[in-house]
Amino acid sequence: MSDPFVIVGGDAAGLSAASKHRRENPDREVVVFEKGRWVSYAQCGMPYYVKGEVDSLLDMLSLTPSDAEERGIDLRREHEVVGVDTDASTVSVEGPDGRFEQPYGDLLVATGAQAVSEPIEGHHLGGAFTIHSMDSTAAVRAFLTDPAEPEFAEPNVEYVDTALVEEFLAREPPETAAIVGGGYVGVEMAEAFAAHDLDVHLFQRPEQLLEPFGEPVGERVAETLRENGVTLHLGEAVERIESDGNGDVGGVSSTGGSVDAGLVVVGIGIRPNSGLVANTPVELGESGAIATDRYGETNVDGVYAAGDCAEMRHAVTGSHDWVPLGLTANRAGRAVGQTVAGRPTPVGDIAGTAVVKAFDMECGRTGLVDHDRARDAGFDPLSKTVTAGSRSGYYPGGAETTVTLTADRGSGKLLGGTIAGTDRAAIRIDTVATALENDMTVGELERTDLAYAPPFSPVWDPVLVGAKVLNGALED
Amino acid sequence: MSDPFVIVGGDAAGLSAASKHRRENPDREVVVFEKGRWVSYAQCGMPYYVKGEVDSLLDMLSLTPSDAEERGIDLRREHEVVGVDTDASTVSVEGPDGRFEQPYGDLLVATGAQAVSEPIEGHHLGGAFTIHSMDSTAAVRAFLTDPAEPEFAEPNVEYVDTALVEEFLAREPPETAAIVGGGYVGVEMAEAFAAHDLDVHLFQRPEQLLEPFGEPVGERVAETLRENGVTLHLGEAVERIESDGNGDVGGVSSTGGSVDAGLVVVGIGIRPNSGLVANTPVELGESGAIATDRYGETNVDGVYAAGDCAEMRHAVTGSHDWVPLGLTANRAGRAVGQTVAGRPTPVGDIAGTAVVKAFDMECGRTGLVDHDRARDAGFDPLSKTVTAGSRSGYYPGGAETTVTLTADRGSGKLLGGTIAGTDRAAIRIDTVATALENDMTVGELERTDLAYAPPFSPVWDPVLVGAKVLNGALED
Repeated sequence: MSDPFVIVGGDAAGLSAASKHRRENPDREVVVFEKGRWVSYAQCGMPYYVKGEVDSLLDMLSLTPSDAEERGIDLRREHEVVGVDTDASTVSVEGPDGRFEQPYGDLLVATGAQAVSEPIEGHHLGGAFTIHSMDSTAAVRAFLTDPAEPEFAEPNVEYVDTALVEEFLAREPPETAAIVGGGYVGVEMAEAFAAHDLDVHLFQRPEQLLEPFGEPVGERVAETLRENGVTLHLGEAVERIESDGNGDVGGVSSTGGSVDAGLVVVGIGIRPNSGLVANTPVELGESGAIATDRYGETNVDGVYAAGDCAEMRHAVTGSHDWVPLGLTANRAGRAVGQTVAGRPTPVGDIAGTAVVKAFDMECGRTGLVDHDRARDAGFDPLSKTVTAGSRSGYYPGGAETTVTLTADRGSGKLLGGTIAGTDRAAIRIDTVATALENDMTVGELERTDLAYAPPFSPVWDPVLVGAKVLNGALED
Repeated sequence: MSDPFVIVGGDAAGLSAASKHRRENPDREVVVFEKGRWVSYAQCGMPYYVKGEVDSLLDMLSLTPSDAEERGIDLRREHEVVGVDTDASTVSVEGPDGRFEQPYGDLLVATGAQAVSEPIEGHHLGGAFTIHSMDSTAAVRAFLTDPAEPEFAEPNVEYVDTALVEEFLAREPPETAAIVGGGYVGVEMAEAFAAHDLDVHLFQRPEQLLEPFGEPVGERVAETLRENGVTLHLGEAVERIESDGNGDVGGVSSTGGSVDAGLVVVGIGIRPNSGLVANTPVELGESGAIATDRYGETNVDGVYAAGDCAEMRHAVTGSHDWVPLGLTANRAGRAVGQTVAGRPTPVGDIAGTAVVKAFDMECGRTGLVDHDRARDAGFDPLSKTVTAGSRSGYYPGGAETTVTLTADRGSGKLLGGTIAGTDRAAIRIDTVATALENDMTVGELERTDLAYAPPFSPVWDPVLVGAKVLNGALED
């Protein structure tokens, strides 16, 4: 096969595929088209860069353009793929020198996702941001920087939108920040802004923060945010971002009233960038993301999709689902790189395992948490919530850990779980995720030989306490 | 059945069985004979009591005698069961008022284990201890107490051997402690003694600390102990505990020389207390512990064994094995209590999952770690060790985490794993334990959807990095 392996998108999935493919098959050409200046940046690190815990944007690149070059990847930044012709096996590319057609032997669509912000009026005002690109993140950090101490901002980092960063660096930092949306981004940005002593207002249309984590976790996170001085506006839908009259944000108006704010962050979700294949035979799934098989291949031979633009098989439901997360993108990209190199490798299932930090509260979730979703998948869900110590009761430093497990009444099959607590809570969700991957029943989980030592876990780990109580309820 | 459910031993397994049985079947009499004054004490908490992190011995009782009474358990302390007649279904008991025969309907032997110390000459000298009873632990803590500040010790706690505690409270604290044995007890006591500013010498006959955790963990722990001022005598066998000429310890002599010490702790292992059934038809396993089936029943109908005196089925080998650990005792006891009440409940498998803290180093192990043991079980083991970050590289506070995974070459089946690191390392072993319980291959583990967020884990959790590298080696 003489035509190259062409990859659209130079982030986690795309560059994982490119790197793995080059290692497996050093003779084959790999071309990666990335429409932006940035490649392979750590999306999930951005709130911590704004907070000031990460010094430089460059620290968050997992692969620099020169690393890519060393691996023999032909990486073309500022090249946007604008069309795919699956009959001709070519992509249309717009680059700095104009448009051209690029033939491919195999194609990986790894175009990621984008922040949703359009529904909110005023999202274009100066000082309103989404935290979904390096440029806007750099601008937010610059905005928080006292112009007298400009070293906190990074106007001169390679690849960054220098003009944008300098514009916000020149402004006086805002005193109040409004956050629209109480998901990952909203909760993490609340922590980041509080660290800069801003007056932080968080608006969330539902009554619950972190909806995918379920109510018990949402409540503990709300409590933590309030304890840290964040004003929560739960059950309030933001109607518009208000202008200050000069093209910048002045505040937000919601169904509950209005709040003045000099900085607004919108984090109300993301959607898959699947538009590139919209007019091709490549099929999308119900979620609007690209449908793939267990090797990440679409319905068109030789065309793959991986990462935030693709659906994958869910470990619990067995159906395809869209859960855009970092590990999934890396793992699927790597598997596709290996498969295209001639060694078929499954991309693996997803369980929707996710963890998030809200100040000192560690939260985790995996599998099916919402009962409606569980019923849609054909299960009869029962959940139990327990609060258990993270260490032996007599050992200092333990913390109340809230575990909710959900199972199917008929079969006892474990469907999902959530956890919240301040002492090594989040990472314990991996036990539940591993149980889901293996179709364990709650009874089997209850009998699993987990670790116990006073500094790390009580005799019955909080996850086991959850399994014990849920299994008791199933038996009744 | 009119005769009571009789339980021999009032610790984790015995009282878990008694409590569960009373809840399931409130009408049936449950009699627990405990030879000592203490019941249900947290063996694993003792080093932290000596260290001073736990204030009172009473904090470490998970069930007090009055709790037991409230649950309707007929608990007889200072009653030693000295014989079992399985034909007559009676046990012979020696109590404060003499000897008597007690009929039983069902019998649970939960006699635990005892510290091995006899092989070492001088183990009877004053100031030489094992850390396997509340009395000796209280005495060690009293010994470390400055007689001028006696509130640190607890001579007046109910149930304690007051004379012993007062004897050591009256002495000047020692300046040097020698520890014989580098297993759990040895490593934890090194930390406890160092906290009291003692000069600590630890002797370990093998070259490696924490042998069940394998070499990579042993090395990291040795490094940690040395950094904290502990003098290690690895590869040195202690020949005897030396006398000071007055019936107290003066030091220890080993194959490597001799060290003066005013306090000696021997922690060279424990052995199952299975002697009670030695002259009965109840069969022992190869380990010398009592053989049981999946419900904890012995070969004699109606006679059960659970906890540190019993063997259980190993999740990886499928054979029976003796791994005395706290969760196992609690879980098996609880299951037997339920089974005897008429609801047959499996005791579950063991994977030998264990965690231990050595200063700030967190260590975990599960499954088959030693290659000889893996070969004995019919496997062809291959291990790989990786060192991976515990958090995203750019996020502060991460730590190098050492993961070793072992698999069978032929099948790719995961056999075991170990972990060491200072940031949430130990608890991650639960992921590997859950994988073992489900007979996962390394490839399946590699594709498991584990948690990722910069403060808690890199994109690829250290366990996944281990699986990726081992799976790569298996494929080569």
